[in-house]
Amino acid sequence: MRMRKKPWAEPFLKAHPQLVIEQPQQLAGQWKDRLSCQQLHVEIGCGKGDYFTQMALKDPRQGWIGIEKNRNVAAIAAKKALAQPHDHLALIALDADALMEWFAPGEVDVIHLNFSDPWPKSGYAKRRLSHERFLQRYQTLLKEDGQVIMKTDNQKLFEFSLTEFSRQQWLLQQVSVDFRREPQEDVITEYERKFMELGQPIYRAVWQKNSISK
Amino acid sequence: MRMRKKPWAEPFLKAHPQLVIEQPQQLAGQWKDRLSCQQLHVEIGCGKGDYFTQMALKDPRQGWIGIEKNRNVAAIAAKKALAQPHDHLALIALDADALMEWFAPGEVDVIHLNFSDPWPKSGYAKRRLSHERFLQRYQTLLKEDGQVIMKTDNQKLFEFSLTEFSRQQWLLQQVSVDFRREPQEDVITEYERKFMELGQPIYRAVWQKNSISK
Repeated sequence: MRMRKKPWAEPFLKAHPQLVIEQPQQLAGQWKDRLSCQQLHVEIGCGKGDYFTQMALKDPRQGWIGIEKNRNVAAIAAKKALAQPHDHLALIALDADALMEWFAPGEVDVIHLNFSDPWPKSGYAKRRLSHERFLQRYQTLLKEDGQVIMKTDNQKLFEFSLTEFSRQQWLLQQVSVDFRREPQEDVITEYERKFMELGQPIYRAVWQKNSISK
Repeated sequence: MRMRKKPWAEPFLKAHPQLVIEQPQQLAGQWKDRLSCQQLHVEIGCGKGDYFTQMALKDPRQGWIGIEKNRNVAAIAAKKALAQPHDHLALIALDADALMEWFAPGEVDVIHLNFSDPWPKSGYAKRRLSHERFLQRYQTLLKEDGQVIMKTDNQKLFEFSLTEFSRQQWLLQQVSVDFRREPQEDVITEYERKFMELGQPIYRAVWQKNSISK
């Protein structure tokens, strides 16, 4: 998501250290205590934060961490989080490439990838958040039967992801090639609604981490 | 596919024993000799036969067997096959439930499932050709790196199949959630064209048999 530089973003992020974690590696292994939760959800690429902040309202036993490297965008997510009860929320406004330093192995229950950048050119396939390079990290960070949940409007990213997870021997637990045709509990963000209004199907899959190899 | 009884069907099938194999179990292990081919393709539920008869024209090194239990429908497939060079073709107008008796283990290169009956009610899930009950049979009949290729317009059948193959640890090699948006070598049957004209996406997947367990 491109966005003009917002002069207020940086001071705003800095002014809320309870929510916006600048040294996430210091909390590795302690996130559930910090967020007083039983289950830890991490959304990589949370954009303006609609998804994780709204999902957090549904169940106070679940902690949610949004990760967004664009600090101008992350500042908007921070505003949204601060406008609601946010004891169970955290925001990391840094590049998820350093993900492995921020969590202990097995600490995360569910990783969410919503409308991730498809990086359509094959030369950039490695940057896709469902590239095997990332799946290997998720494999480590997730608990024993931990899950990755992906939603996207991008056909090619979805197809790439299905084959990539299969190659890494993850279990495809649920899949929908037209997710919004069925009623469900999931939050619909404004961003997502735009695609739906264009008649674009939303694709969704839930994988459980590979329990075969190790 | 429902169809009125055709009085000519039964005598026609019986009159062409070179093409229409009434005792397929007698050819188990010998199909590649019989069809003088290097690769053996089997289409389960071939309907009126458009797909396998047209695919067979593309490459004479490949043998194709169509299976269709409705003998009125199979008779139409037989007519089409007989109207072209058909040394590499065979038709089995019997219920594929007896599949295991007809082929030797590892004899088949590729199994094709085109627009199979979705059996939408969950009570009939066992009848779906991608139910694990069938996958276990395919696992036996296919050669070491053998494949199943599925095409369907049915969202629910496709989703069911993706999770079912994953549970059985097959490798998803290719997948498309809108197959006809891209140019490709595949034959488009009249049946398929009807769905395309309705703007219905065609779903397709290619799985390689599970090489992990045995």
